[in-house]
Amino acid sequence: MTEGESGGYRGDGRGLLLKHNISIGDTVEVDTVDDKLSGIIMPRYEAASDEFIVIKLKSGYNVGIRIPRIRSIRKLSRNTASVNVKSSGKPENKNLPRLALISTGGTIASKVDYRTGGVHPALSASELYDSVPELAAVAQIEPEVLLSEYSENLNPGHWTMIAQKIADKVQKGTFSGVVVSHGTDTMHYSAAALSFALQRLPVPVVLVGAQRSSDRPSSDAALNLLGATTFAVGSEVSGVFVAMHHGTSDDAVAIHVGTRVRKNHTSRRDAFESIDVTPVALVRNGRIEMQKKSSIKLTPRKSDAQLKLSPKFDASVALLKYHPGFDPRFIDYAVTAGYKAIILEGTGLGHVSRECYPALKNAIKAGLVVCMTSQCIWGRVGMTVYDTGRDLLEIGVVPLSDMISETATVKAMWALANTRNVSSTIEMMKENVANEMTSALPIS
Amino acid sequence: MTEGESGGYRGDGRGLLLKHNISIGDTVEVDTVDDKLSGIIMPRYEAASDEFIVIKLKSGYNVGIRIPRIRSIRKLSRNTASVNVKSSGKPENKNLPRLALISTGGTIASKVDYRTGGVHPALSASELYDSVPELAAVAQIEPEVLLSEYSENLNPGHWTMIAQKIADKVQKGTFSGVVVSHGTDTMHYSAAALSFALQRLPVPVVLVGAQRSSDRPSSDAALNLLGATTFAVGSEVSGVFVAMHHGTSDDAVAIHVGTRVRKNHTSRRDAFESIDVTPVALVRNGRIEMQKKSSIKLTPRKSDAQLKLSPKFDASVALLKYHPGFDPRFIDYAVTAGYKAIILEGTGLGHVSRECYPALKNAIKAGLVVCMTSQCIWGRVGMTVYDTGRDLLEIGVVPLSDMISETATVKAMWALANTRNVSSTIEMMKENVANEMTSALPIS
Repeated sequence: MTEGESGGYRGDGRGLLLKHNISIGDTVEVDTVDDKLSGIIMPRYEAASDEFIVIKLKSGYNVGIRIPRIRSIRKLSRNTASVNVKSSGKPENKNLPRLALISTGGTIASKVDYRTGGVHPALSASELYDSVPELAAVAQIEPEVLLSEYSENLNPGHWTMIAQKIADKVQKGTFSGVVVSHGTDTMHYSAAALSFALQRLPVPVVLVGAQRSSDRPSSDAALNLLGATTFAVGSEVSGVFVAMHHGTSDDAVAIHVGTRVRKNHTSRRDAFESIDVTPVALVRNGRIEMQKKSSIKLTPRKSDAQLKLSPKFDASVALLKYHPGFDPRFIDYAVTAGYKAIILEGTGLGHVSRECYPALKNAIKAGLVVCMTSQCIWGRVGMTVYDTGRDLLEIGVVPLSDMISETATVKAMWALANTRNVSSTIEMMKENVANEMTSALPIS
Repeated sequence: MTEGESGGYRGDGRGLLLKHNISIGDTVEVDTVDDKLSGIIMPRYEAASDEFIVIKLKSGYNVGIRIPRIRSIRKLSRNTASVNVKSSGKPENKNLPRLALISTGGTIASKVDYRTGGVHPALSASELYDSVPELAAVAQIEPEVLLSEYSENLNPGHWTMIAQKIADKVQKGTFSGVVVSHGTDTMHYSAAALSFALQRLPVPVVLVGAQRSSDRPSSDAALNLLGATTFAVGSEVSGVFVAMHHGTSDDAVAIHVGTRVRKNHTSRRDAFESIDVTPVALVRNGRIEMQKKSSIKLTPRKSDAQLKLSPKFDASVALLKYHPGFDPRFIDYAVTAGYKAIILEGTGLGHVSRECYPALKNAIKAGLVVCMTSQCIWGRVGMTVYDTGRDLLEIGVVPLSDMISETATVKAMWALANTRNVSSTIEMMKENVANEMTSALPIS
């Protein structure tokens, strides 16, 4: 193993690999005090301790193994595959589909912190192939760093920027798909925003993040990126999607519709879940398994589709979550402060207390669009069922069916920027634009 | 069948029962065009159509059967059991434990609308036994109608009223348990409020509701009430709980800790779920199955426990849900409007954008208690992991571990009313008072 092949290993790790004549990319079998594991030796991440070596399991997961726990290590096969994993590595196959990878700061690849790309802005294709060797067999990746932000700092102006960048890539006509790496905190808001901003996409746009940074042994970064890439270049459907770890097994990535997904856990790798629908597809062992049960109507991939770009957002939308003791003065304040729309996150089927009625009447009279979602998250508002709902409908509150409140907030910002007046904004909110609603069924 | 035994049936339903000499309470087998069903003939609900007869299945569910779909009906056994189901019915067994049933407007029994008890405020024990005959074998129920409100109209003043009423009942020392029937929209908020207001309870207090009103064939009202009653008089643990339909099967009621439960679906019967913990128990076929896996520390039932009643709440708490484009002026407004605490529902591990920092600093400087929960719902905030979290801690934002934001809002209202100053309020928020937090573990 030369310096260039050490993959950043130092100290004990490097010693162990040298002793057994093992290089980065070799397939090995490791006998530890706990398990017998086999996989590909991965480059060491700069932030990682010297005490580990990292191998990529067949499942796509990276596992860090503490060197003192290793009983023996054995090379099974030499670095092969369709991938050259040296630092200057390039995929051999120029016939693979081309993928545009836009980095916004959530990531993914070994050299990039998963919360901000800031540390290594010069993300190169070869670095990606170094970190996730299987990528090189799936696509020719052309990465570009657009932003380096924690996703909680992204705002509607950033959505516009990302939408325009994607449009640039797509309109070149040479990419088979686009992947956007993104911090997970607000990835579902951005996915909804891009779903409205980019309609009639010729190719899929897939947002991807990681719940655990790639310098951690249990990172989901590599598997998620591989799943996103596989779907982006290989799927027969188009649209905006989120690709994240599925369930508790270690081998599947779920593909969610961009408007129907939510981060439902602070830390688990399978935190992202489709709400009220099944995921569109799973990507497992390099294969795309479309989920037939999905009730979502998808658009086929169509290379000559004429992209409709509407990238503007008007942030004058207040999301107000109702609770017992909620103060209607917050509604009054939204009016005073110049807001144009309010998304009420009501209880149950879409209710707020009758104490809110005067403030709501006043807001609607003042020209605000007031819409109702449910804080239950799952299910749909049903405002004709009880007095409270009927009262609110009469006041002029717009029920949003099974749209989740995060998507509703984003959609209202987009509708305000793309309509001329209150009534057309309301019409837009009621219309199913990007699978954000399922046609209403009776409450069951 | 005499008029008194017709159980309110008229028209075709009454004719069918008369023809086969079947009375209310008889066990029958019904052969329909779809299924063969057997169960107990239930009284007809006033709001129900004449086209149905209603039978209670062994599972505890009521099923309405359309008369035109009935091929044949056969009496299996006569109205028996330990219950007299005539309108003046009373349980025979005076040795059964006594239960106080406090009705707030969510219900449950056949004669009470499940959203408001207003239609039939004179809820009597005999009416309850009419509707849910099994109840008479479990407890001697002493019902009292306290409120008749849709639960979205309940406010912290109502929590005080309910807490005081429960304390009255409990302090008599003659009840083995208390059940509070409640609309489902805000039942989890009330359950949290009662958990803080009523500490060291000698007997269990169980809130119960129904997702489908009792005049609907698929109503969960009877099963839930039976489960709540069984747990309230029979469990070996004390505290405040919520009893609601469990899973998709038709025979189990889950018992949730009052501070750890959320309504997660607008309409499903199993809408209520324990968050980050397993339910405390299931009640199935009249038996209490304690869930050993529950990580919750429960207090044993103790008839001589000295109830600690702290029923006051201060509603000066603003719950603000962060989203991209969130306007920090809402934080400023909470200060201006005289709020004393803010619960921030942040993203991911507990984050808001750095644009909020100045407003948060200002709010904390002005003496507001500012706490952080996560809009992910599941998982816990972890504010030492990333820069954003550390910045917010430094500003003085209080992390609330795995407390859900609904419970956090209620707890802040209670803490404000029961502490003297900002630092003691903060201490109270950090302390685990009623199982609202699980001791922090490393983020995994």
